Amino acid sequence: MIFYAKDRLKAVRPKAQGGLGEVHGLHSLTADRRPDKTHFKMVGRMTLAPGSSIGLHTHKDDEEIYIILSGQGLYTKNDGQTETVGPGDMTLARQGHQHGLANDGAEPLIFMAVIAAD
Amino acid sequence: MIFYAKDRLKAVRPKAQGGLGEVHGLHSLTADRRPDKTHFKMVGRMTLAPGSSIGLHTHKDDEEIYIILSGQGLYTKNDGQTETVGPGDMTLARQGHQHGLANDGAEPLIFMAVIAAD
Repeated sequence: MIFYAKDRLKAVRPKAQGGLGEVHGLHSLTADRRPDKTHFKMVGRMTLAPGSSIGLHTHKDDEEIYIILSGQGLYTKNDGQTETVGPGDMTLARQGHQHGLANDGAEPLIFMAVIAAD
Repeated sequence: MIFYAKDRLKAVRPKAQGGLGEVHGLHSLTADRRPDKTHFKMVGRMTLAPGSSIGLHTHKDDEEIYIILSGQGLYTKNDGQTETVGPGDMTLARQGHQHGLANDGAEPLIFMAVIAAD
């Protein structure tokens, strides 16, 4: 099963989860397009411009990983502490946990977001 | 929860799943390092040199997505048919299904592999 780049859904979310600026997403998989019998619920290539952020939010019914591809970010962990993340770093917010991500660098922060659920 | 780039596990697999050449992996998450209470079982940045491949294999107990970051590949779907994939394309092999991937281009084929399970 192939989800081609050309068929990705573009989405721009201002003030995502109470954050700043906009999140630009290119979604291969969304809840609407989710096939049967898969844990994967969302797969998207996300971009945060410098100064933009995704606010702290809780994953009540699913879990999410971020895989940083380029740029620099400040990741807020479940315990509320922040850590700097960059290319090759991966984060995980398990079900019931919270996270957030801000671009505190000078370049676009580009990352893959993958959500899984039961 | 952060899995830093510097802590990724390097793995070189020759003739992976009966394929050609080698697969080079940089694994953020592996079955050994899997936290409790997550569907995510493996996350790795994989590289296939030109001419290298991952042979056709079945995901009996889990499912896997490939997210192509750069290069060109020939993806074998569950029905045995092959399709060309490139940057931004995503593939999904659900539980019980088979897939394979070959680098039939001139540049390294780089992709994220993410495995999820119950």
